[in-house]
Amino acid sequence: MTEIATARRSRITPEREAELYTAVLELLREVGYDALTMDAVAARTRSSKATLYRQWGGKPELVVKAMRHNKPGSIGDADTGSLRGDFHTLVSREDDCAMERNSDLMRALAMAAHTNPDLMRALKELLVEPEMDEFQRVLRRAVDRGEIRADSPALPYILHMLVGAFVARTLIDELPPTQEFLRSYIDAVVLPALGVQSH
Amino acid sequence: MTEIATARRSRITPEREAELYTAVLELLREVGYDALTMDAVAARTRSSKATLYRQWGGKPELVVKAMRHNKPGSIGDADTGSLRGDFHTLVSREDDCAMERNSDLMRALAMAAHTNPDLMRALKELLVEPEMDEFQRVLRRAVDRGEIRADSPALPYILHMLVGAFVARTLIDELPPTQEFLRSYIDAVVLPALGVQSH
Repeated sequence: MTEIATARRSRITPEREAELYTAVLELLREVGYDALTMDAVAARTRSSKATLYRQWGGKPELVVKAMRHNKPGSIGDADTGSLRGDFHTLVSREDDCAMERNSDLMRALAMAAHTNPDLMRALKELLVEPEMDEFQRVLRRAVDRGEIRADSPALPYILHMLVGAFVARTLIDELPPTQEFLRSYIDAVVLPALGVQSH
Repeated sequence: MTEIATARRSRITPEREAELYTAVLELLREVGYDALTMDAVAARTRSSKATLYRQWGGKPELVVKAMRHNKPGSIGDADTGSLRGDFHTLVSREDDCAMERNSDLMRALAMAAHTNPDLMRALKELLVEPEMDEFQRVLRRAVDRGEIRADSPALPYILHMLVGAFVARTLIDELPPTQEFLRSYIDAVVLPALGVQSH
């Protein structure tokens, strides 16, 4: 299995992959998920549809992997020695402008996923679950340091708290999710809910 | 102004108003917001479109007022002597079945609001803001009792926490927002974030 996976992967260089993802996100911003076609991706990137399907399987996977590739670095790598430090580092990975653009795209994809079960599945399997796994590493380190209790009742609700921050901020406050807002939300809601003593 | 408002209101009895709201929500479930027409509401309720427009102003206002009318009782009236008691009472106003149906409708309306600015405005002015005002009464009583500090940094984020509970629960967990889930979320996230000592 590993050999086959490597063989499939080796057809496209990392540079070429990055180019393709950039083009996919451009198209996504221009026409939206439903109107985006594999033909248009092939034309824009001068690749064959066969290559796209062989490499990614389909449009939902290609789009979600482009989103994921666009995210800066790995969440789990932030290791500052405190949960607050780790969370604040995560928030600082993207500047406000990049964060607003990605947040707009994610919202559009989440809307499209309501009527595209394949996209919903791809979003969960290829984006939400891997990110939550990395979050778990950050949280496990905090448990190991004794900052939070392993049985903290708020631990299963990390994603709910964070989703609420983004959705209510953009939909109800009608403001972009800035670094300043997210740091404030982390300090006011996430850390106290987890039982981390404020600094 | 009061006289005019009274005169306008008096054209429809509360019973008739309730009948109309029920019919609007039925239609909303059947065809969705975009396909729902004032003609269909008029036909279903045997009323004239002129009456509907005079009484509600338009489709967004009519639909949102139907949603609001459908909610049980007033949030601010829950007064059990503790914030936890008040929150748990609020959660118990609707059984799980009613909550799931309302949550589905709210999600559909929030989606439709993305492309209908008038609906978004009506949702905020006629549903979210009045509910938040009532929440503020519940929270003010908790401040007055000394349960939470008036300057608790989590106070501005009540709506974000609650929105996250509903959105992540339905969209990512793919489970309905049951009373049990909401009580657990309130105890694990909302009360600790507000600094309320656990029982």
